[in-house]
Amino acid sequence: MDEQQLRELLENVRAGDASIDRAVERLRHMPFEDLGYAKVDHHRALRQGFSEVIFGKGKTDEQVLGIAGKLLERSQNLLITRTHSGIAERLRADVPETEYFPLSGVVRVWRDRSPRGKGRIAVVCAGTSDIPVAEEAQLAAEVMGNEVDSIHDVGVAGIHRLISQSERLQAARVVVVCAGMEGALPSAVGGLVNVPVIAVPTSVGYGASFNGLAALLGMLNSCSSNVTVVNIDNGFGAGYVASLINRI
Amino acid sequence: MDEQQLRELLENVRAGDASIDRAVERLRHMPFEDLGYAKVDHHRALRQGFSEVIFGKGKTDEQVLGIAGKLLERSQNLLITRTHSGIAERLRADVPETEYFPLSGVVRVWRDRSPRGKGRIAVVCAGTSDIPVAEEAQLAAEVMGNEVDSIHDVGVAGIHRLISQSERLQAARVVVVCAGMEGALPSAVGGLVNVPVIAVPTSVGYGASFNGLAALLGMLNSCSSNVTVVNIDNGFGAGYVASLINRI
Amino acid sequence: MDEQQLRELLENVRAGDASIDRAVERLRHMPFEDLGYAKVDHHRALRQGFSEVIFGKGKTDEQVLGIAGKLLERSQNLLITRTHSGIAERLRADVPETEYFPLSGVVRVWRDRSPRGKGRIAVVCAGTSDIPVAEEAQLAAEVMGNEVDSIHDVGVAGIHRLISQSERLQAARVVVVCAGMEGALPSAVGGLVNVPVIAVPTSVGYGASFNGLAALLGMLNSCSSNVTVVNIDNGFGAGYVASLINRI
Amino acid sequence: MDEQQLRELLENVRAGDASIDRAVERLRHMPFEDLGYAKVDHHRALRQGFSEVIFGKGKTDEQVLGIAGKLLERSQNLLITRTHSGIAERLRADVPETEYFPLSGVVRVWRDRSPRGKGRIAVVCAGTSDIPVAEEAQLAAEVMGNEVDSIHDVGVAGIHRLISQSERLQAARVVVVCAGMEGALPSAVGGLVNVPVIAVPTSVGYGASFNGLAALLGMLNSCSSNVTVVNIDNGFGAGYVASLINRI
Amino acid sequence: MDEQQLRELLENVRAGDASIDRAVERLRHMPFEDLGYAKVDHHRALRQGFSEVIFGKGKTDEQVLGIAGKLLERSQNLLITRTHSGIAERLRADVPETEYFPLSGVVRVWRDRSPRGKGRIAVVCAGTSDIPVAEEAQLAAEVMGNEVDSIHDVGVAGIHRLISQSERLQAARVVVVCAGMEGALPSAVGGLVNVPVIAVPTSVGYGASFNGLAALLGMLNSCSSNVTVVNIDNGFGAGYVASLINRI
Amino acid sequence: MDEQQLRELLENVRAGDASIDRAVERLRHMPFEDLGYAKVDHHRALRQGFSEVIFGKGKTDEQVLGIAGKLLERSQNLLITRTHSGIAERLRADVPETEYFPLSGVVRVWRDRSPRGKGRIAVVCAGTSDIPVAEEAQLAAEVMGNEVDSIHDVGVAGIHRLISQSERLQAARVVVVCAGMEGALPSAVGGLVNVPVIAVPTSVGYGASFNGLAALLGMLNSCSSNVTVVNIDNGFGAGYVASLINRI
Amino acid sequence: MDEQQLRELLENVRAGDASIDRAVERLRHMPFEDLGYAKVDHHRALRQGFSEVIFGKGKTDEQVLGIAGKLLERSQNLLITRTHSGIAERLRADVPETEYFPLSGVVRVWRDRSPRGKGRIAVVCAGTSDIPVAEEAQLAAEVMGNEVDSIHDVGVAGIHRLISQSERLQAARVVVVCAGMEGALPSAVGGLVNVPVIAVPTSVGYGASFNGLAALLGMLNSCSSNVTVVNIDNGFGAGYVASLINRI
Amino acid sequence: MDEQQLRELLENVRAGDASIDRAVERLRHMPFEDLGYAKVDHHRALRQGFSEVIFGKGKTDEQVLGIAGKLLERSQNLLITRTHSGIAERLRADVPETEYFPLSGVVRVWRDRSPRGKGRIAVVCAGTSDIPVAEEAQLAAEVMGNEVDSIHDVGVAGIHRLISQSERLQAARVVVVCAGMEGALPSAVGGLVNVPVIAVPTSVGYGASFNGLAALLGMLNSCSSNVTVVNIDNGFGAGYVASLINRI
Repeated sequence: MDEQQLRELLENVRAGDASIDRAVERLRHMPFEDLGYAKVDHHRALRQGFSEVIFGKGKTDEQVLGIAGKLLERSQNLLITRTHSGIAERLRADVPETEYFPLSGVVRVWRDRSPRGKGRIAVVCAGTSDIPVAEEAQLAAEVMGNEVDSIHDVGVAGIHRLISQSERLQAARVVVVCAGMEGALPSAVGGLVNVPVIAVPTSVGYGASFNGLAALLGMLNSCSSNVTVVNIDNGFGAGYVASLINRI
Repeated sequence: MDEQQLRELLENVRAGDASIDRAVERLRHMPFEDLGYAKVDHHRALRQGFSEVIFGKGKTDEQVLGIAGKLLERSQNLLITRTHSGIAERLRADVPETEYFPLSGVVRVWRDRSPRGKGRIAVVCAGTSDIPVAEEAQLAAEVMGNEVDSIHDVGVAGIHRLISQSERLQAARVVVVCAGMEGALPSAVGGLVNVPVIAVPTSVGYGASFNGLAALLGMLNSCSSNVTVVNIDNGFGAGYVASLINRI
Repeated sequence: MDEQQLRELLENVRAGDASIDRAVERLRHMPFEDLGYAKVDHHRALRQGFSEVIFGKGKTDEQVLGIAGKLLERSQNLLITRTHSGIAERLRADVPETEYFPLSGVVRVWRDRSPRGKGRIAVVCAGTSDIPVAEEAQLAAEVMGNEVDSIHDVGVAGIHRLISQSERLQAARVVVVCAGMEGALPSAVGGLVNVPVIAVPTSVGYGASFNGLAALLGMLNSCSSNVTVVNIDNGFGAGYVASLINRI
Repeated sequence: MDEQQLRELLENVRAGDASIDRAVERLRHMPFEDLGYAKVDHHRALRQGFSEVIFGKGKTDEQVLGIAGKLLERSQNLLITRTHSGIAERLRADVPETEYFPLSGVVRVWRDRSPRGKGRIAVVCAGTSDIPVAEEAQLAAEVMGNEVDSIHDVGVAGIHRLISQSERLQAARVVVVCAGMEGALPSAVGGLVNVPVIAVPTSVGYGASFNGLAALLGMLNSCSSNVTVVNIDNGFGAGYVASLINRI
Repeated sequence: MDEQQLRELLENVRAGDASIDRAVERLRHMPFEDLGYAKVDHHRALRQGFSEVIFGKGKTDEQVLGIAGKLLERSQNLLITRTHSGIAERLRADVPETEYFPLSGVVRVWRDRSPRGKGRIAVVCAGTSDIPVAEEAQLAAEVMGNEVDSIHDVGVAGIHRLISQSERLQAARVVVVCAGMEGALPSAVGGLVNVPVIAVPTSVGYGASFNGLAALLGMLNSCSSNVTVVNIDNGFGAGYVASLINRI
Repeated sequence: MDEQQLRELLENVRAGDASIDRAVERLRHMPFEDLGYAKVDHHRALRQGFSEVIFGKGKTDEQVLGIAGKLLERSQNLLITRTHSGIAERLRADVPETEYFPLSGVVRVWRDRSPRGKGRIAVVCAGTSDIPVAEEAQLAAEVMGNEVDSIHDVGVAGIHRLISQSERLQAARVVVVCAGMEGALPSAVGGLVNVPVIAVPTSVGYGASFNGLAALLGMLNSCSSNVTVVNIDNGFGAGYVASLINRI
Repeated sequence: MDEQQLRELLENVRAGDASIDRAVERLRHMPFEDLGYAKVDHHRALRQGFSEVIFGKGKTDEQVLGIAGKLLERSQNLLITRTHSGIAERLRADVPETEYFPLSGVVRVWRDRSPRGKGRIAVVCAGTSDIPVAEEAQLAAEVMGNEVDSIHDVGVAGIHRLISQSERLQAARVVVVCAGMEGALPSAVGGLVNVPVIAVPTSVGYGASFNGLAALLGMLNSCSSNVTVVNIDNGFGAGYVASLINRI
Repeated sequence: MDEQQLRELLENVRAGDASIDRAVERLRHMPFEDLGYAKVDHHRALRQGFSEVIFGKGKTDEQVLGIAGKLLERSQNLLITRTHSGIAERLRADVPETEYFPLSGVVRVWRDRSPRGKGRIAVVCAGTSDIPVAEEAQLAAEVMGNEVDSIHDVGVAGIHRLISQSERLQAARVVVVCAGMEGALPSAVGGLVNVPVIAVPTSVGYGASFNGLAALLGMLNSCSSNVTVVNIDNGFGAGYVASLINRI
């Protein structure tokens, strides 16, 4: 409710067109729906340009499907991350367009494919093992209406591989870079492009990678000033922010 | 050197207009200048839209002034972060427009004030003690040609203070949020706006804040999907990325 | 044994009404019972107002049931946390009122439902995945004689959801707040109420949440002064302290 | 503004007694005052029963004195923590009742000494070196209207010292326990009383105390269920929460 | 080989009773036997008073049994820690005295039960869940010839339970204390006795116990000066050192 | 492409023997092959003297076998680390020389056994449990053409065992030392030899070994100046660097 | 007060030889004296064989001297650790035997030099920089009545230096080993002797020594079973426990 | 003493040419000299090819100069790291060739400049602030007889700068790479050369660099297999190992 709506409501009160009870009600009303275990926020699409995504981990199947059903009543698209094929199968019974991506564990309903981004988003990953996280970023960016250019296996140990992709990188409006181990790729990419780079540390590695901590710290200390960082393995978050930037 | 320039160079070689020696030279030439202790990169302005910033910490005064002199030969503006007033005084002898900001320890030369950003950047901070970091973000964004709206002291413990600023927040094209202690402010701001939020953990706090680690971890785990994070106290980085986004 | 009782005992000794052996015995007697593997403390109910709770994790089924049997000889109520349905089934054979709560893994015998708290305890959680911890807090508070008001899914990314619950929050005499990820909710709740807030970090999250460490650090650094913290996932402890406060 | 006030305002609008502009203003008005660098919150006294405390660390002297001046316009009492004697001296020029406590670095103005707590608060510390933190807790509790019983140097290595204080401990309505090193004292105290225990880890120690981390972790893992924890060295927070509990 | 033996050898060389080759051989000979995967050290019994113990974790069954066979050729007793019942069964075929202790996963052959310690060793544990670690300590101490007094479930939250055991504690020549969670018990025990206390942090706990780290740090920071610490869950090490002390 | 090749290419352009398109192509061509999920780098053998090794962890079986097939088209030898016997079986169908080593989980094809190292590499390990990591180092060094001398079970607790191997150690041109727990062996070995020592911390241990962190930190702080360190359990890396040194 | 004394007291009560008031008094009396800021424990000498040591850090000079004065009323000897020469100078005015040791910052009054230990204590250190910690251990052991053999600069990088001291090591009844950096020395010493080894990690080192953490972890993971550990730089604690062992 | 010398000694004993006392003496003699506070190891030059270096930190000036004097009696060269100009001045009085390098705090006596390395050592650093560490590596390598090629300011954010140095890098026989912040440079260099790369994390950075921890972890997780790592800021160690490799 913006100031304009507030003024109208108050004018209606003054004019007697709105009862005080109703005005109180409206002033306290929040635009979300209550399922008991989750408050489904239909207005996020208005506020942030995309309907609510379901983070599957830590929710029961019934909870996931209940929230999904509510969201699909009003939205063409849906993304469920960190979930499993069983959810996809049960959802497909009602929504035949349901896709499932086993590498990343993502369920996607992508019916409204109208483009919303103004340019291309590049999603880069350092090694084969980083692909699941990159895929999550790609799926999120696509379902939010972006064209995605995926560039795989261009880690800094083979710097020529990366440089050979300079043109594709420079053609992007924003770049997502997924890397585990030492997490050095965002710095190198950041030096090659003049757009924002969103770095996603992955938990790929062993020993002193400490499940992605090494990559995370590396990215936070990047010597390329155009790098920002999201949580370890948070491909979705990177795809989401890239979409926001691409839409500006 | 893009493909077009490469083609032209090769055509000149074929036509005999360029000697092979010169072509080899140009193909190996990198556009930076060598001071011995630092390679000054004049082309970064071309690549990233802003001439090199000097990170003052860990450099001697002579090194900082040497790099500054080289940069100012070709650039109207300059930013030196993590430095001290002595640098400003010595620089002002040559460059009277030199400003010094004691809270953040920034030296700035801001002669070319032509706007480059398409909208406004909001720089928000949680408490009075976070102002130095926010100032560094603001100075960086301004010198890169952006209008900045600074909003101070709106921490989540007084959530109404924050909500009272919703309109200013929603008017921004990108938001920088600086917070120490528990670092909760970016999540709350992220839920109020539909643009990218760049979170800067600050080292403000004591005890279990572990010099900003608590804020950093909090921001990386933000439940608002539009939040990305930079290093602790890295106001400059946040202002820089905000500028890139605002310029897209 | 307070000073008065000590005086009486000594007077009995002087008067010859108590033998020295008996006095020595009484002076050394501790009011707990020894099962070999665990000393069952029947007097804790006297000292702390609630009979001993069994922390199930790390104990064998036989140990849990042995302690439970001893406690139920003298107590109407019982709470077993971090246990499994098998315990509930075996206990139900003797105690038909035995309840089992699969989300939190709690077994409860709640026969004496007389109210002991003076007001209401609000138990708030940030997201659906935090419900198991909130449930443990709720069950503990209820079995100790408190009315509990549960408020779910009001994380700080949707700050209006939280504010819409202000009245319910302000009606509580003490508030328990469970949150994972960045753990920001206690700070926001703390600013809305003028009673103690007991924060429970949960292990909900991934990557840099480090199994609840991020939330824990966030809560310890809360900018709301009315927040205290218990261990990660320690719903029971929060419910227990809330009960003590509500009973004062 | 509660619902009752909202109704009255709306009735005034309907009755024409309040203009729409004024209503909009009031509905958006937040009861804080803006000093530029800090928003002074006069209504916290209403919400939380005590006017704003100033956390001195990280603020300039001018900022501290500016906020103090604003607060003292409407409040009898004031507490400035983590500050220095210079602040006390400058404040004393205007406010002769200003006290300064060098061990804890606290400045206090305590003019309204009317009791507000219903019982006594015990503030316990493990060793002589923990006294500064305990003092901060005591000063905060006193200025909020509580009687405080201070018990020093009763660490668990001399368990009889602690037990000899059982009666004083049991006479308190809430207990604050400050301890560094292994931080074991709250567990032992927690077993002796049946009221809430607020544990304050202190940074006292060396080596593997890691500036209070060992004590903090110990307290979070307390086997006494009536223990909650605040940040390392946060004597103020403990005194504040103890006051809230004592006032219920 | 001590100096005396060296002199004798050299005298034999001078006297021609020992060939130079044999002397070289003896001077380089080390008293261990090589199984390829492990060098079995038969002389440790001479050097440290107890034949080699086998740490089972990380070794294949064949490796464990191979080393055990070699050791039993020359030793009456044997201890295998961190192993499983299958090893016990296979060993029992040859050595009928083989015992297996499922709580701690220890296999023991205890044929030579002659006492070697001069006094009693007390093995104390804080809670029922700490018993497996305490058992490992007890089994090690017993097989090395010590009388052990086990005291269970005397955690600091019920300090009277502990004090009621003061006499048993004070009767010991050395005390082993096993505790998880906050690890406070060694400090309390340390204040009650005037002999060395060997503290064993256990991995009992959850959340911020970080698998025993909290207890470990607590014990390292003990305010009782007679406390030393071994690795988390290292019951064997504590029993071993206690045996060495008891034998002095 | 070195300067000479560049000159030739440019001369061909000038002479009209190479079209500009082809020159552009060659100048951008990188010598790797694209499988979609992985860029196979055939030129690494030229650059680093050994064809690409496959790190099996985090790759699907199909990905591993696909890369292996491509590599074996041009290389006699192959090493797959962190894999399982199923890969070996499938590969053996085509390549009968395929070996599988279950302790370390390595698959090796070793057809070209021509020696390339100039001396011997010693691979030392502290305990039986460290053998898997040492084996990985040995297999890598062998397949790269080195003679390896394996020395097992010479931990610092039996310092004479180690010293008895001094001659073998001093005969090596480079030494790899694998140790878990306290990781002290590289320091002791480093003092016995005058060649580079490559230290491999292993995850062998428990409790405060923190999965190899203790050993890693110990090795990084070695008081022997000839010690460098690789990642925890990175036997391959140590064998690889030892091979490079032995080849110089 | 043991059972015998309790019986006697009660018999006196029965016989009328002791008034009830006096009995109550004695039964509640704790043998410590209250200075306000510290409870001086005169009976620790009875309980633990040595009068209270003053840990100087974190206490004001007045506090240290006040406690020292009280202790010296009843004790011949005194040890103040982590203090400075000013304390020594002021104390020497009253107690001319006062010694000051600048390397370790210890003040010692050693008037009663009667031997109490049964054998010799060896205090070993790895490098010159570890001497201050070793000195603290030596001073503590001496003032408690032990003969100390100090062995310096025998780190594991020069293993022959250490072995050349085997006889001195083996002549000790208990060994204290101080080492920083990788902390490997206790393991090596532990393998050479058959008595308890008390390991003291020191904060000597830089970088990844993390102020002694590396040494601490190394020692906790020692492969020598006769090693126990005290806090980083806790020379006093090691000397104290060594004294207790030597006195048994 | 090798086997040959041992045989000769024994033969002398047999022949009566050596007394048993003398033989015992020789067999126990270790080739180091005892200054009380440090055992000076003159034979390290024999064992490791370079006389002892003095690590200045944590030693008094007298200790440093005492050791230096002893070493210079038998050695032409000397290196003192982590020291200050005062040491240089006092040493120069006796040894006029003494050099002092203020950036790295190194004192060097370099009189014997005969080359010992077979090739060139490249010492690379990422930024201007890393130069002090690189200088320490260079000075160590030079004094050990190596030609050093220093390459500064080639961080991965400007990847073309690095690639422009490929030839110099590929001309080296071993490469030392010093980098702070994210520590990505060794991976990139490792991919460009086919020789061993010794990575030195530096403490350059702030916030989440955690004094070099981020760089250290990054380097340990390098995706380039030819990278090994030394301690944070350990330029000396890197230069030392590079010298050993270059001498092989």
